[in-house]
Amino acid sequence: MAPGPNWSIPAAVGSEPLTRYLDLNSDVGESFGPYVMGETATLMTQITSANVACGFHAGDPRIMQATVALARQHQVGVGAHVGFHDLVGFGRRAIAASPEEIATDVLYQIGALFAFTQAAGVPLRHVKAHGALYNQAERDRSVAEALVEGISRFGGSLTLVASGSSAMAIAAAEAGVPVAREAFADRAYRLDGTLAPRSMSGSVLTDTELVAERAVSLATRGEVQTYDGGQIEVPCDTLCIHGDTPGATALATRVRSALESAGVELRQLNSQVSARAH
Amino acid sequence: MAPGPNWSIPAAVGSEPLTRYLDLNSDVGESFGPYVMGETATLMTQITSANVACGFHAGDPRIMQATVALARQHQVGVGAHVGFHDLVGFGRRAIAASPEEIATDVLYQIGALFAFTQAAGVPLRHVKAHGALYNQAERDRSVAEALVEGISRFGGSLTLVASGSSAMAIAAAEAGVPVAREAFADRAYRLDGTLAPRSMSGSVLTDTELVAERAVSLATRGEVQTYDGGQIEVPCDTLCIHGDTPGATALATRVRSALESAGVELRQLNSQVSARAH
Amino acid sequence: MAPGPNWSIPAAVGSEPLTRYLDLNSDVGESFGPYVMGETATLMTQITSANVACGFHAGDPRIMQATVALARQHQVGVGAHVGFHDLVGFGRRAIAASPEEIATDVLYQIGALFAFTQAAGVPLRHVKAHGALYNQAERDRSVAEALVEGISRFGGSLTLVASGSSAMAIAAAEAGVPVAREAFADRAYRLDGTLAPRSMSGSVLTDTELVAERAVSLATRGEVQTYDGGQIEVPCDTLCIHGDTPGATALATRVRSALESAGVELRQLNSQVSARAH
Amino acid sequence: MAPGPNWSIPAAVGSEPLTRYLDLNSDVGESFGPYVMGETATLMTQITSANVACGFHAGDPRIMQATVALARQHQVGVGAHVGFHDLVGFGRRAIAASPEEIATDVLYQIGALFAFTQAAGVPLRHVKAHGALYNQAERDRSVAEALVEGISRFGGSLTLVASGSSAMAIAAAEAGVPVAREAFADRAYRLDGTLAPRSMSGSVLTDTELVAERAVSLATRGEVQTYDGGQIEVPCDTLCIHGDTPGATALATRVRSALESAGVELRQLNSQVSARAH
Repeated sequence: MAPGPNWSIPAAVGSEPLTRYLDLNSDVGESFGPYVMGETATLMTQITSANVACGFHAGDPRIMQATVALARQHQVGVGAHVGFHDLVGFGRRAIAASPEEIATDVLYQIGALFAFTQAAGVPLRHVKAHGALYNQAERDRSVAEALVEGISRFGGSLTLVASGSSAMAIAAAEAGVPVAREAFADRAYRLDGTLAPRSMSGSVLTDTELVAERAVSLATRGEVQTYDGGQIEVPCDTLCIHGDTPGATALATRVRSALESAGVELRQLNSQVSARAH
Repeated sequence: MAPGPNWSIPAAVGSEPLTRYLDLNSDVGESFGPYVMGETATLMTQITSANVACGFHAGDPRIMQATVALARQHQVGVGAHVGFHDLVGFGRRAIAASPEEIATDVLYQIGALFAFTQAAGVPLRHVKAHGALYNQAERDRSVAEALVEGISRFGGSLTLVASGSSAMAIAAAEAGVPVAREAFADRAYRLDGTLAPRSMSGSVLTDTELVAERAVSLATRGEVQTYDGGQIEVPCDTLCIHGDTPGATALATRVRSALESAGVELRQLNSQVSARAH
Repeated sequence: MAPGPNWSIPAAVGSEPLTRYLDLNSDVGESFGPYVMGETATLMTQITSANVACGFHAGDPRIMQATVALARQHQVGVGAHVGFHDLVGFGRRAIAASPEEIATDVLYQIGALFAFTQAAGVPLRHVKAHGALYNQAERDRSVAEALVEGISRFGGSLTLVASGSSAMAIAAAEAGVPVAREAFADRAYRLDGTLAPRSMSGSVLTDTELVAERAVSLATRGEVQTYDGGQIEVPCDTLCIHGDTPGATALATRVRSALESAGVELRQLNSQVSARAH
Repeated sequence: MAPGPNWSIPAAVGSEPLTRYLDLNSDVGESFGPYVMGETATLMTQITSANVACGFHAGDPRIMQATVALARQHQVGVGAHVGFHDLVGFGRRAIAASPEEIATDVLYQIGALFAFTQAAGVPLRHVKAHGALYNQAERDRSVAEALVEGISRFGGSLTLVASGSSAMAIAAAEAGVPVAREAFADRAYRLDGTLAPRSMSGSVLTDTELVAERAVSLATRGEVQTYDGGQIEVPCDTLCIHGDTPGATALATRVRSALESAGVELRQLNSQVSARAH
């Protein structure tokens, strides 16, 4: 609500140049046992925040430790990517869990990852929901509150990464949990600010230059063109780079370079971020 | 700085009466999902330290939260009961895991439980190995060091609960991890200080009065009678009350009462315990 | 030998006495690893069909083998109790699985149990959905078809146990999979033939005599009194005895005795049961 | 039609040319959920027997169904690749399971895969142990017998794939379970017929031509050159093509072509194979 505690969207357009800050987040550490997934090692050289799988939908203790070590090496902020406990479904299938089951599962995963950040001597910065839990917490008030409850119980100053208009962002703001508002440069938006479903043709953008351009628009003006040619405001503290698509690193590299050329400073989420949903 | 190297076994017999301290620890929180195991709720009224299962061999996030809540209510110290990831085998089957697998599995479990102690506002005090991991870490130097490595990585001042002569106690002492030396009043000892295997008849004592008497001997003199009638020294900072045997609470109650009658003060493990394995 | 296409509900009320047949089924083998659940051993002396958990929501290979051995000893028919892969949730939480995921999970579980029936030299008779899968397959056409698809793929002449009016019974009939119509003597029915939800007070009947009386009514007249005092037809080839409630065996014993007194012959489901859902 | 009890190694060298038969087996279906592993689809065009993971160390119901479908399409024989229940360790870590745990785990896995062969209308031909279970069953009599016991309980005429001199081959022969003697063209043998451990340099051969040559020697003469230049007899009914090494398909293609040029007919294992260990 206030243009004060806000670091990424310029509060006012004055005559002097403003430095704009943006975080680039990506899902990493999604390998499991002998199975390799994603481009964790190279993505780490481009992003500023890493959403690390915690063993429920992907990841295992060895992968978590190695992922945190990479994040530390590249000074990337570490967050817990929390999901449903469903390895075979990769956390992409909603489970009709009770709010208390969700809150305690989230708390467990945060703690598990925290151990590895402690061991590595880096702070645990943020939490992001994964897959079906993300989708549910975007719209379902009860799931959103359960997710935020899990984060709150851990205490400290963990930031929730969530789209600004989501139920989870609202629940977090109400609970005093800081929110970093997430936007997507490679997904088509609708006029109401929601994403066009993946099933719609053209909903996922693959043209690297177009994605880079939209990233700059989101970072510098907080705006993006919609699916049908309109223009909407999308507040953006952190931009999501999808890590499980082939060429994720190349896309991240291009987006990063376009942002830097536009004068945007890439900076990891930190505990100074205050709650700012809606 | 410390009152001698030792807080439970009087360092010297002087003229003035010494208060002797002892901790009573028990394995709790071993239920899982819909399955109930043990006498967690009643045992908590008698013990001073709770070894809480962390979801690898038993326990789940709901059980962990409820167990920590009970411990908090009864001012019982909370520790992580870490084991092999083997629910169906209840952590009782050795897994040929690498040292790094053991260290990271231990670290993960410590963190997971830490989240619940954070949420409950109580400290995480100690770590104890469970089942096959306990057995291996008693004798196998490499497993012992891996266990201690996992504890060390978490940092803080977690105390390892282990028999004083075990490989894990020695590894902990070398790594600067505090050790609380554990003894068993209901198990037969051999002259070399090791436990008689459960397969030997008479190796598990079920006579409550005898167990209580041995507990007092361990607590006040640091001695216990062996299987074949000898007498050996068994240093004892904490006495293990087996939680998975029927009547565990009744036994704990009798032992506690006998100890208190003998002037032993029951007190939970704390971070002042210094490393003292040898 | 059989009275038309129908063995439990008399096709016509003539002058001569008809023998009525009924199956009593119960969920058994729901222990897991070190955890014990239910009254499998004693229930087996009363029931005629056993729904055996297959390791996805409960049970493990040792439990499955032991449960099949008990069924064989008491000449109880063996069926696969198939559920969502969710041990901690005991299969009681719906998972948004695709139809293909459901069909293949069902097929896998049937095969796993089949191995134990092969080893024991007994036939695999039937399949029943468990928990959330049962609930979904009662109402959701797509889930119902996926369940039936899994059964069909296995081939043979497995009978689906399901309430006669459920989506799964209809899907089975259409696919040529035999159905044994299930009714509940200890649950309140509504006028439309559906069960009153457990959350309604009085929806679960605990008065043993009343349950026994309703069992007789279901078996001999195919009728039961509704929650609000009406009377409805409920076709019943098999009566479900809830195995996870305390006193399940005592209830089964009373129901069995009441049925036998009323001239109902208890007989396990068999492959002669023809599809009859409508 | 067969030269005595033996179909691949000519029982006698007569004057007329003998057709030699050989099976090529490979581990396939080792993907899991969203994770892809190995070259299942292309390997299937070259091999004659597929060892299909059954969900304990790798594989899941969807992967199993797809793998069996591919085998059917290419007329490749299907067998159960049974392992320890340890996804994160990929079945490569020994678990101190009891013989009864091993036997029932094996039986469960066989049944689970059987369901998919039933559904596909193809026979289940063989069983092969995976990873740590294979290693243990090669040397440990008790594990070997437990593995064979699991196979025996299923009944039918499943063939065990195992090296001719292994404890499991001997246990199978004694129990009347047919054995297909397995050899490795890409591994160095020692004079006693055992494989040189992977840790020894030169123990894994990567020169495709050399591997092909050794395959021909094994198939046509039942002999292979040892690590230190000697020559030993290695009975070989089936040749293992390692499926998890990069280039596995290319190697299989070359080996197959060399074998065919040498007049060896590639033919899947079948139920006519008689027990022939040692």
